[in-house]
Amino acid sequence: MSSSPATAISSAPTIGVFDSGFGGLTVLRALIERMPHAHFAFLGDTARLPYGSKSRRTIARYAAESAQFLVREQGAEFLVIACNTASALALDAIQDAVPVPVLGVIEPGAQAARAASKTGDVLVIATDATVQSHAYTAACQALGLRSLEKACPLLVPLVEEGWTDPSSPTGHVTAQVVQIYLDELAAQAAAAGLNADILVLGCTHYPLLRPLIESALPPGVRVIDSAQAVAEAAARSINCRLPTIGEDRAEGSPHAQLRCFATDSVDKFERLGSRFLGRPVGKVQLVDLGG
Amino acid sequence: MSSSPATAISSAPTIGVFDSGFGGLTVLRALIERMPHAHFAFLGDTARLPYGSKSRRTIARYAAESAQFLVREQGAEFLVIACNTASALALDAIQDAVPVPVLGVIEPGAQAARAASKTGDVLVIATDATVQSHAYTAACQALGLRSLEKACPLLVPLVEEGWTDPSSPTGHVTAQVVQIYLDELAAQAAAAGLNADILVLGCTHYPLLRPLIESALPPGVRVIDSAQAVAEAAARSINCRLPTIGEDRAEGSPHAQLRCFATDSVDKFERLGSRFLGRPVGKVQLVDLGG
Repeated sequence: MSSSPATAISSAPTIGVFDSGFGGLTVLRALIERMPHAHFAFLGDTARLPYGSKSRRTIARYAAESAQFLVREQGAEFLVIACNTASALALDAIQDAVPVPVLGVIEPGAQAARAASKTGDVLVIATDATVQSHAYTAACQALGLRSLEKACPLLVPLVEEGWTDPSSPTGHVTAQVVQIYLDELAAQAAAAGLNADILVLGCTHYPLLRPLIESALPPGVRVIDSAQAVAEAAARSINCRLPTIGEDRAEGSPHAQLRCFATDSVDKFERLGSRFLGRPVGKVQLVDLGG
Repeated sequence: MSSSPATAISSAPTIGVFDSGFGGLTVLRALIERMPHAHFAFLGDTARLPYGSKSRRTIARYAAESAQFLVREQGAEFLVIACNTASALALDAIQDAVPVPVLGVIEPGAQAARAASKTGDVLVIATDATVQSHAYTAACQALGLRSLEKACPLLVPLVEEGWTDPSSPTGHVTAQVVQIYLDELAAQAAAAGLNADILVLGCTHYPLLRPLIESALPPGVRVIDSAQAVAEAAARSINCRLPTIGEDRAEGSPHAQLRCFATDSVDKFERLGSRFLGRPVGKVQLVDLGG
C-alpha cells in the first residue's frame, strides 16, 4: 500500500488533501503543523460543491475523480479526505479508486473523543448534511460512546463572511449565534440523559470559531477539533506505513511545500483561504475534472 | 407567442414559475395574490443549486431544461423566472428555449424602483452571485437610475434557519445582522455621493425579512420587493398578451391551483416552503432533469 507507481520517491512524502470546498484548509493547516517537512497537494472541488445536497453515488464519483487527480497527477502517496460529507458517504469508493492509504476526517475525530472523554458521552456540531448522514453517531457508537449531533447551518456562512473576531461587533453577533446553538444542544443533551464532557467540531470551518465556541460551553466540556485529530492520525499512519519516506526524508526539506488546486472560484479560494490555512495559499491552479 | 401547442386552452391560464431553489416561492406567493384565479406550476431545481457558483453556460442549460419541463410537460403558457441568478445570466437562453413569454425578476424590480424613486438613486441588496453579475446595476442604469449593490450572504441562511421573528432571541440576532449590512451600505452610499430613497430586495428570500429590514433603514428610504414587482409585471403582461385567457377564464376557477416540483430535497422544500409561500405547499413531486 505504500507504493505509488506514478511517483518517484523524492526527499519528502507527498500528502494529498481533498475537500469539496476550501474549509479543509484547516485540516491542511493542522497537517503542516504536525508534518512540517512533507509536501502537500490540496484540491478543492469548488465547482461541484456543496456535496451535502447530492446523492451518495454522485458524491462517490466526484470524490473518486478528485482522489485520482491527487494520486495520478500530483503523485500523492497518502490521501486525507478533509471533507465530512465525502468522508461520511464516499470513503470506501475513494479507497477503491486509488492505490494509496486514505484517511477520512470522521473516525479520527471520534477516536480523539473517546480518548479524551471520561463520561463516554459526546456532543457533535456539524453541517446539516453531515448530521443527516449520522456518520459521527455511527463512529462514536462503534467506539462505545453515546453521542448527540446538532446541525449549525449558520456557522459556515458566518466564518466565510469573516465574522470571527470576538472583539468586533460582527464577532459579537457570531458569539450570540454560537451561544443559541450550544444552549439548544445542552438542553437536548439534558433531555436525552447525556452527561457530555466533549464537543467535537465536526466541520472543517469550525476551528476558526474555536475561541467563541469555548467561551460559550459550560464548564467541564472540552473541544475536540476533527482537523487536529485527523492530522495526528495521518502523522501516525504515515510514520508507520511509509517509514522509509517519513522522518528520514524530512531532513532534506526544511519547509512544507504546498500546491493548491480548485475546480472553480479560484478568486474566492485565494481571498478566503489564507484565513483557514493561517498563511497565504499562494497561487491556486484551476483544474477541470469534468461535469 | 400566446400559443402553447402542448396545452389545450383550459378555464384559467397556467403560469410556470422557476427557481434554482425554493426562495422563488415568495414570487409565487405574490403572483397568487395578484392572480388568484390562475393555475401555477412551480419548479425548484434544488438538485443543481446553487446556480451562483456555476458558469453562465451551465446555468443557461439548467434553466432552459427547467423552462422546457414547465412548458412542455406542465403546459405553462407564461413563464416567470423567480431566480435572480438565472434572470441575470440566462434570460435570453430561456426565451430561446420555449415558445411562450418569459419574464425575469430583475427588470421589474428596477422598473418599480424607477417609478417610486424621487432622487433617482437606488440601493440593492442581494446574494453574492447576483451582485457579482451586476444585473441590477445594468437594469437601473438602462432606466437612468444610479445604484449601489451590496451582497448580504448571511441573510439567506438566516431565513432558512427560520430566525425571522423580530420578537424572538433568534430574530434579534437577525436584526443585528441586517443593521450591520444596512449601515455598511449607507456608509458606502454616502461615500459614493448617492442620496438613495429606495432599497430593492434583490433576493427572493428577503421578503421574509421585510419588517426587520424596514426597521433598520434610515427614514425616507422605501423598500421595493422584486417579488411583488415581478408579480405586478406578470399580471399586466398576461392580461395584455393573453386577453382571451385572462380575466374571462378566471371566472370558472375560484382558487389558484398549484403544483410544485423539485429536482431534489423534496423534504426540505415541503418543510420550509410554506413559510415562503404563506400557505402549505402540499405534496412536492420529484422530477429528474438529468445531471
